[in-house]
Order: sequence, then C-alpha cells, then structure tokens
Amino acid sequence: MNLGHLLLGKPLATKDLPHQAISKRVGLAVFASDALSSTAYATQEILVILSIAAIGSTAIWQTQGNILAIAIPIAIAISILLAIVTISYRQTIFAYPNGGGAYIVARDNLGETPAQVAGAALLTDYILTVAVSISAGVAQITSFFPELAPLRVHIAVAVIGLMTLVNLRGVKESGTIFAIPTYFFLGVMLLTLAAGFVRLLGGSLGVIPPDSVEIVPHLGESLVTPEAAGAFIFLILRAFSSGCTALTGIEAISNGIQAFHEPRSKNAAKTLVVMSSVLIVLFIGITVLAVNIHAIPSEHETVISQLGRSVFGANSMMHFLLLGGTALILLMAANTSYADFPRLAALIAADGFLPRQLTNRGGRLVFSWGILFLSLAAALLVIIGNASTTTLIPLYAIGVFLSFTMSQYGMYIHMGRVGKLKPGEEIQGLETVMKYDPHWHRKQIISLIGAICTFVVMVIFAITKFTHGAWFIVILIPLLVLVFFKIHHHYKSVAHELSLAGSRPDTKPRTVQTIILIDDVHRETARLVNVAKSLRHPWKAIHVAVNPEKALKVEQKWNERIGEGELLILQSPYRLLAEPIADYIEDIQKQEPSCFVHIIVGHLAMDTFWEQALHSNSSLILNLIFSRMENVVFTTVPYRIHTHEEDDAEDTKREPEQQELTPTA
Amino acid sequence: MNLGHLLLGKPLATKDLPHQAISKRVGLAVFASDALSSTAYATQEILVILSIAAIGSTAIWQTQGNILAIAIPIAIAISILLAIVTISYRQTIFAYPNGGGAYIVARDNLGETPAQVAGAALLTDYILTVAVSISAGVAQITSFFPELAPLRVHIAVAVIGLMTLVNLRGVKESGTIFAIPTYFFLGVMLLTLAAGFVRLLGGSLGVIPPDSVEIVPHLGESLVTPEAAGAFIFLILRAFSSGCTALTGIEAISNGIQAFHEPRSKNAAKTLVVMSSVLIVLFIGITVLAVNIHAIPSEHETVISQLGRSVFGANSMMHFLLLGGTALILLMAANTSYADFPRLAALIAADGFLPRQLTNRGGRLVFSWGILFLSLAAALLVIIGNASTTTLIPLYAIGVFLSFTMSQYGMYIHMGRVGKLKPGEEIQGLETVMKYDPHWHRKQIISLIGAICTFVVMVIFAITKFTHGAWFIVILIPLLVLVFFKIHHHYKSVAHELSLAGSRPDTKPRTVQTIILIDDVHRETARLVNVAKSLRHPWKAIHVAVNPEKALKVEQKWNERIGEGELLILQSPYRLLAEPIADYIEDIQKQEPSCFVHIIVGHLAMDTFWEQALHSNSSLILNLIFSRMENVVFTTVPYRIHTHEEDDAEDTKREPEQQELTPTA
Repeated sequence: MNLGHLLLGKPLATKDLPHQAISKRVGLAVFASDALSSTAYATQEILVILSIAAIGSTAIWQTQGNILAIAIPIAIAISILLAIVTISYRQTIFAYPNGGGAYIVARDNLGETPAQVAGAALLTDYILTVAVSISAGVAQITSFFPELAPLRVHIAVAVIGLMTLVNLRGVKESGTIFAIPTYFFLGVMLLTLAAGFVRLLGGSLGVIPPDSVEIVPHLGESLVTPEAAGAFIFLILRAFSSGCTALTGIEAISNGIQAFHEPRSKNAAKTLVVMSSVLIVLFIGITVLAVNIHAIPSEHETVISQLGRSVFGANSMMHFLLLGGTALILLMAANTSYADFPRLAALIAADGFLPRQLTNRGGRLVFSWGILFLSLAAALLVIIGNASTTTLIPLYAIGVFLSFTMSQYGMYIHMGRVGKLKPGEEIQGLETVMKYDPHWHRKQIISLIGAICTFVVMVIFAITKFTHGAWFIVILIPLLVLVFFKIHHHYKSVAHELSLAGSRPDTKPRTVQTIILIDDVHRETARLVNVAKSLRHPWKAIHVAVNPEKALKVEQKWNERIGEGELLILQSPYRLLAEPIADYIEDIQKQEPSCFVHIIVGHLAMDTFWEQALHSNSSLILNLIFSRMENVVFTTVPYRIHTHEEDDAEDTKREPEQQELTPTA
Repeated sequence: MNLGHLLLGKPLATKDLPHQAISKRVGLAVFASDALSSTAYATQEILVILSIAAIGSTAIWQTQGNILAIAIPIAIAISILLAIVTISYRQTIFAYPNGGGAYIVARDNLGETPAQVAGAALLTDYILTVAVSISAGVAQITSFFPELAPLRVHIAVAVIGLMTLVNLRGVKESGTIFAIPTYFFLGVMLLTLAAGFVRLLGGSLGVIPPDSVEIVPHLGESLVTPEAAGAFIFLILRAFSSGCTALTGIEAISNGIQAFHEPRSKNAAKTLVVMSSVLIVLFIGITVLAVNIHAIPSEHETVISQLGRSVFGANSMMHFLLLGGTALILLMAANTSYADFPRLAALIAADGFLPRQLTNRGGRLVFSWGILFLSLAAALLVIIGNASTTTLIPLYAIGVFLSFTMSQYGMYIHMGRVGKLKPGEEIQGLETVMKYDPHWHRKQIISLIGAICTFVVMVIFAITKFTHGAWFIVILIPLLVLVFFKIHHHYKSVAHELSLAGSRPDTKPRTVQTIILIDDVHRETARLVNVAKSLRHPWKAIHVAVNPEKALKVEQKWNERIGEGELLILQSPYRLLAEPIADYIEDIQKQEPSCFVHIIVGHLAMDTFWEQALHSNSSLILNLIFSRMENVVFTTVPYRIHTHEEDDAEDTKREPEQQELTPTA
C-alpha cells in the first residue's frame, strides 16, 4: 500500500477530476510528441522512395539530383494535406467536445460498424506506436552506446514499465514530467533549422560527401527512369504516401479533448493549430535543408544526423544534442498513446464493445486497465519483434489513415446535416450540438478532400507494404471488429437475461436446506456449526471421504466434540471433492425442487499470501464449481488465524470485542 | 476434460493403488537409469583430474601414461565404496520398508534437523538431476545435429514437458514407456564392453591417435609431478571423488520402495543388488578399456565416443547406436527423479515441513503437485542456465553425498540400537521393526565406513567446486531447512489455534445481521432479495456510490422494481468498493458485538472463461477482502447466464425443474 502510494502518489477523490485537467502548454507536450516525432523520419522516407529512381550508388545526387529534389514539392503537398486534415479535426473538436475523435464522429454520422472499425484501427495503431517509437528511441540510444545493443529488448521493456508508472500517476503528472524532453527536442530542432538556413543563405552550408554514408542496400535494384511515365507517377505517389507518416499523431488531440482545462474545445483547438504549424515548419524546413545538403537515405546514418553534422560539424556538441533530442522525442511519442488509448478504450467499453472494466477509474483517476493493457500489448510486441523497428514499421500508419478517412468522411456527412438546418436552428445530439453554419459547404468540401487524400494514402500503404506485414493489419482490424461485436452481443444478451422489463419480480421466501462441508473437526468446524445453528434452518454436515481412513477419524471426533446434528460421510473413490457433493445437492433438489440449497464452507484466513498458500483454500475452488449449479447459495465462513504476535496486538486494538467473542475451549 | 483423459489416461480409483505397483524389471528401468547414466561420464571425470598431472598436450599417454593408468585402481576403489553403500542401503530397505531412504533413516535415528537437512539435500539434488541430465542428453543430440543447437533450451524444456505428462500418467506407465531406452542403453553398452574385451585380449584393440582429439583446454595449466607427494595424494583424492559421481543414483530405490510389488522390501533389495552389480561391471569395464585405448579427456569427444570408435570403428552403425543409447540414458536419468522427488516431498509434507498439497494424489494416483513442482523448478534452472551442463554440474552431487552420509550414519546409529536388543527381542517403531540381529556389529562397521567415505567425498566436492557454483548449494541447503522449519512452525501454530483440546465448543446460536450488496437493480438483484427473505433474518440492501450518478438511478429503480426492504447508499469519494462496507460492518459490530454479519453478494456465472472475464467478478475479490474481518459470513449467490443455446438445452435436460423456478417477469 505504501509502496503503491510512493510510486503512484496518493489516491485522488472523484470530485478532484476537474483539477486533473491540463493546460495548453502541457497539452502540447502530451499530445504533440507523437506528431512531432514523425519529423524525425518522414523526410527520410520520401528520399528512400525517390532513390529507387536513382542509380544504385552513393553518388545519387550527382547523377539523379533532379529526381531527389522532388522531395521539396512533395513535402509541400503533404503539408497542404496536413493543413486540410487539421482544419477538419479542428471542426471535429468543436462539433464533438467530449473527445473520442474518429470513433465518435463515425458513430454519430456513419453508424455502429464504421465506428468500431475506426476504434479498432486507432487502438491497434496506438499499441504499435508505443512499440515502434520506443524501439526506435532505444535503437538511437544503442547506436550511441553499441555495448548496450544486446540489452535493447530489456531497455525497451523497462522504458515501457517506466512510462506505465508515470501514466498511472495521471496525465497531468506525465505531461509535466514529459514536457521537458518534448520542448527540448523542439528547441534543438528549431535551432538546427535556423542555423541551417542562415548557413544556406550565406552559402556556407556544405554537401554530404557521397562516400561518407552507406546507401540503403535495396536501392538501385529497380531503376525507374523519368521516361517510364506511369511507373514514375506511381513512384511519386509512393514517395508522397511514405512522407505522409508526418501526419500520424495529429488525431491525438481530437481523441483527448477531455484532458484539457475548460473551455476544453477552445484550448484543444488552439493546441492543435500550434502543433500543426510547428509540424509543417519542421517538416518543410528539414526537407529543404536535406535536399540542399544532398542527404543520403541510409540505414547507417539518419537524415537528421546528416543534417546535424552538415550544420554544426560532425561530433560537435550540437550534433549530439540533436541526436539526443531525436531519441527523446521518439520515446515520448509513445506517451501520446498513453494519453489516448485508455480514453478511447473507455469510450468503446462504455458502449459495450470492450470489457466494462476499462471504464473504471483507478486511484489516480486514470483508466488504469487501459494503461496496463496498452503496456502489456506493446511489451509483447517489442519482445516478439525483438525491439526491431523494421519488423514493426510496416504494420504502422495504416490504422491511423483508416481512422483519418473515417473521421474526415464522417465530418463530411456531419456538415451535410448542418447544411440542412435553417438559420438560427440548433439540434442537441448525444455528443454534439448542431448549429446553423453559413460556411457549411466550404467546410464540407475540405473534409471530403481530406477523406479522399487520406483514403488514397491508406490504400497505397496497404498495397506497397502488404507483403512486409501490412497483411497482418488488414486481417487484424476486421477480426478485432468481430470480437468487439461478440463482446457487444454478450453484454446485450446478459442485459436481456437480467432485465426485469419494468415489472416487479416474485421474491416470495423459499425453504432453505443448509449443508456444511467439513474437512476435520476443530475450532473452525465449531464456527461452521455455530453459523448453521444461528441461521436457524435445517442443517446437515457433510464430509467427503477422499481419504477413507481419515473419514473414520472425523466421524469419531464429530461425535465426541460436536455431538449434535447429523454428519453424513460421502464416498469418493476417485478422490474428488466437489462431485459427490454436487450429486447430493441434485438429490435434495429433486425431492424439494423449490428450495435454495445453502452450502457453508470454512476458510482459514491467514495474514500473508505465503501462509495462505500453505493451505488448500478449497473454499475458493468450491465456490467457482458450485456457482455453476442453479439455486445454490454458497457461503464462506472465514476463520482468521494469527500466527504473528504483532498482528494479534494490532487486531486487538481494532476489534476489542474479538477476544470475548471467540468461543473458548 | 477429454483432452486431460487423452493425455493422462482415465482417473484411477483409490482402491487401485496396489495395482499401480511395478515389477522388478520395470523398477530397474525406473530407478536405475540415474545410476547407470553416471557411467557415461564417471570415467571421464577421473581422467580429467589425472590429466592435470600430465603435460599439457594430447600426447599425455605417451609421456605420463603411468599416471593416467591410476584410473583403474581408483575405479576399483570407488566400486568397493559403491558396494559398501549398496550393502548399507540394502539394510535400510529392510529396516525401513515404507521408503524415504536417507530422510526416514535420519528422522528415526538422528532427529528432526538432520532429517530435514537430508530431505532438503535430496530434493535439491533431484531438481538438479533433471536439469543436468536433460541438458546433457540434449547436448548429445545437438552434437549429432548441430543445426538444432540454437533450439537446445526449447528442446530441453519440451523434454521436461513430455516427461511431466508421462509421469502424471503414473509411475507404472512411465516405467513401461521408459524401460525401452534404459534397456537399450544397457544392451548396447554391454555389447561394447564385450566386443572391447574380446579385441583387447585378441590384441587387436587400437589406441586413440593423440592428435585426433582436442584436449580439455584447462589441462596442463598446473603440472603436478609425482615427486610433489602431498599434491599428488590430493590429486588422487580429487580424482577419486570426481569418479564418485558414479555413485549418484544408488539411493533412488531406498526412497521409492512403495512403488514396488509386494513383497516390497525383498523386490526392492533384489533390484538394488542387480543395479549395483551392473553399475560396477559397466564402470570398471569402461575404465579398463578407456585406459587401454589411451582415451583422451576432451570437451569435444566423450570417452564413451572414443571407446565406441576404437571398438567398432569411427562412424560405424554400432558407434552411433552407442552414442544414441548414451543420449537416451542421460535423458532417462531425469525420470528417476520423477519417481523419487514427489514421493519424498509427500513424506516431508506429511510431517508438516512442506505444503500439505504435496500429499494429495491426483487423478492417476501420483503426487501431481510434486511432479509439477519438480518440472517447473528444473525448467527454470534449464532456462536460467541456458541448458549448459558446465554451469549446472558443479552444483550437482553435493546433495546426494550429504544424504549418503546422513543415511549411512543413521544406519550406524540404528545398528547400535539393534545391538542393544536381547536375542529374540523385537521393537515396533513408527517406520521400523527392530529385531535382534547377531551380525549387528559387522553391519554397523560397514555403515560407518560408508559414512566416513561419503562424507570425505562430499567435503572434497564442496571445497574443489566451491568457487564454480558449489557455494550456492552450501548456502541453499541451510536456507531450505530454515524454510522447512518455518512451514512446520506455521502448521503447528495453526493446529494450536484450531485445537479444541478435547472439549466441547460453545455453538450457541447468535443473532445474524444480513446485508445484501447490490450494484444495479435487475433479475440478479431480485434473486439476492429472494435469498435474503428466505433466510428470514433482518436484512438491508447496500449500494456503494462509486459513481454518484449511477447511485441515484439505482435508488430510483430499487423503489420501482423491488419496493420493499431498506436500500442504503454508502458514499465512496475514492471510488473504493470494499472500504465503505467494511466501515459499515464495524459500526454494526460495535452496536451488537455478538452477532454474525452476513454479507450476501451476487455472482453472474458465465459458461466460458472469456465471458466471465468480461464481468467484474467483484464477488471473488470481496470474498477475499471480507475474509480478513472477524465474525463475518460471506455468501455468494450465483446467477447463471446462458448466452449459448446449446448449453441451455443441456441444462434443461439436467435440471428439469429449473424453468419453473426462475422468477419470471
């Protein structure tokens, strides 16, 4: 208990929930780290694809520089898409102020199945984000300290553990703690860009020597020349969609609006706009500089690192700070998932499509089950995937783009509904308030463009990465949706079975037949007899003769020490405990069909887990077994055993009447 | 259930226990495999130590052959010790016909602490035997098929799993299945020795070419010459004690006498004598041939393999059969531990020094908990030790020799007690019948010699291997003994607390205050009210307002649908379920100190585990929590939910009255 408080902080009262809201500054750190982290690799992803058109040598800029320079217009196009999606999500934030993003938008506008598809896609992607970004961050760390490489799975799991602890303390605390690395990355990156552009304009920015970096091995295998127009357009499309990983993470704020201070929607929307602006500046800035330094897409040195050494010089302090900041932002990207996954899972669970437990708020008012599930799933992925990003990355981003499409298309429908309102009209929905909006048509078109673009990107992702693992996601998401609906069906059936349909049920008292199960005759047995007598219904004691010799002794002791009531010995040739009792209960129920059979079992309650483990604890198992019978009531009579003197003292203090009450011999 | 029957066979009735006894032929296979397997490495162990005196080259036989030939007299000396220990154990078998070997002998003659030391030593050694012998067997397999080497931990764990399954089926079955490999090894080995001696006497047995085998790397580091007499004697002692690993396993029969057909002692004793004779023949035979072929102690080729290729030619069919048989016997050695560990653990548990559950016989009349514990512990060792024998072997054999010493010394004391009897006198002990024996003095001396020799060997083991891991055993055994006594103390305290001391306890009926805990108002709630009313004691319903909004709805529904009794809403600012109830119970107990507080909780019982996991199952957790309070009685009222139609049909068949009974809306 004290260790728990030390690690997680003191429990928070339910009424403290509003105090757990976060400011825009902290919100940017919590929700932007995923989006910002994508600038660490998006430019590189574009260059890798464009290099396919170049000759397979590190001298690609000298021979095919004009093709690789297309990275800049592609980055600008992606930024425009990013702006469109941002505008659409901004509308979502105001239209659906309780958060839930794509899930709620789809549920409200597209129906139950699209909503569950969006939910499954987002939840899957959040798990992958944690696994991928922590693996990538750890890979950065182990490239500084190669001697740590064999421990990378251990380090990744430890980081997940740490992130779990901090998030179990609450989003407010995790935001405050994790704001430092996010702002550190932002500072270093902006400094790098500023210095880079100053040197570029001053003409002093050098070019990466072609032989200083090893090129990605698979490059140059398929040479696509600008002459083969169809193939070339396809290449540009692939480069565009690969670069679209820069968009991942911008949905985060729309899911987590509830984490913000009031006025929530306004604060969330402002944070979203700041985040997207910063993202566009970083992304275009990095891409322009990368083209100008002739950065080489390589497995051995990232484009960010090449940028750092061009701007500041190799192994300079600033170069290291840039690499460190990048490692940090990759680790922090996982934290965004911790902010969103539990909230989204709770929303879906509240709709009855995921286990209800996910809606419970823990001691620190966070959705503890969601946090723990996210950590376990991500840790499992990291262990199975051996903390390697190359196995995990192809699985990534399809889910986010699926949810983007759903969300944009949902907003398109939403705006259509808004368009049907008369001026001044207002409709109050479950999650939304629809007001007349003169600009509905423009907003609708923006969402439609966003939906089409993100859909195309998703399809390109799914096709080009299909054989590298994307097939898994293509199978997994429908499967998850199926499971969600199975869960929903279960809850509906249970609710149906339990429904009183508004009527008063018949609770007329029935007869009760009591049986007490005894293993031996001692003080605990006397307690059982005492309880049975106190309940004042007909009772009988039963001993199952698992060990026939012992049964004889029990019978003898019963007669000597208890000497009242009837003791029945049930034979059990196969040493089973529950089955002979179950048969006996069925006999009673045949004779008297309308009675409750009341089974009373003793339980020796010990002070510690280890002491408890030294006893058979059969009451727990029997409870589960007899729960499967109808009209059976199962009672446990605990008998506390104190083998430690300190505990005795403590208990005497708490329950002064105890000493007198225990029947003395 | 059916899968269980398929894997383990149908359950056996308690009265079938005598039919599970095994014949001498099967007994030899079960209990001798551990002892016989030691011939696979004992000769090599002697040669490794003797080679320390030789020059560090593979030409050791050409330069120091006279020193290595000392292996033969050492093997003869070890065989004499083996014969002495065998004679002593044969006496033990007749004196203690219920088995338990060193543990029972020590308990009866030396006292409680020495008995627990012997028990802890033997149990530790059995776990190590499983881990070491399976690792060694798998190492033999992977040296045939090097491509399997990366999977060796997986294979070892799989073999342990298989052995667990076969042993859970029962010793009789495991004996029958595992007799084949044991007798196969015995046949191939005897054939090899016969062929070897024929070729030796015919003068056609060649010598291993010195350069065909790589010598053990550490040899030659410390050159001990015969001139340095003290060091030389120490070397001979070390070689002697290393060769004494040949003795490990001869205690097995004395522990497992109960597995044999009646007359148990006679059958066990005969099996012991046959086993020891075969062991001596194999050990001396292998050692004589190894010296004659100038076998070279090496990490790369075992002495057995060198023997095989000298006798039959390298890579001949018989050479492979010999290697295969050796691999099999090493795996089978683990099976002896499976026969002994659960029996010994059950004996110690029956004395209250280990958890009582170890005395339960499973469906197939074996001590299932003991088998499972042995498997888990061995698998853990294999995984931690990476299935490498070099890490595990230094831990090995100390425990066995400690138990040898205890057992021999115990028999020395026992024979002393026998010596005090008058002719014809007979004393009936708990585990033994002491009869007058005219040869008591001779027998006593044999046991004393055995005790001294095995003690010396143990000390040499502990000293020479101390830094290689033996320190772990030297710490572990006392620690285990401490734990055993802690467990014993716990059971004694509990027995004391529960003791009625022969008197009749007071079971005068008390008042019962019933509270039913409700989460919502539906059909299950009506069942709870029905039970409370049927019990006919004053009752009250309680709802803990974890979610204040829900609490209001529950109150309203209660009034509408139940409309009788009192519903109390308890506030819970920290969203805790149990604590407000516990406070309320304490209030009741303050007002009415002598009453039982009867808590009634509903439990939704589902058909499958997964469905059950979708519900909070708080009754199970509350049961554990309230078990820690005094004078509280905890009742679970199960309410079965059928969401599957098939199950409905089945249940209607079993409980025809059910349909009518459920209160209908």
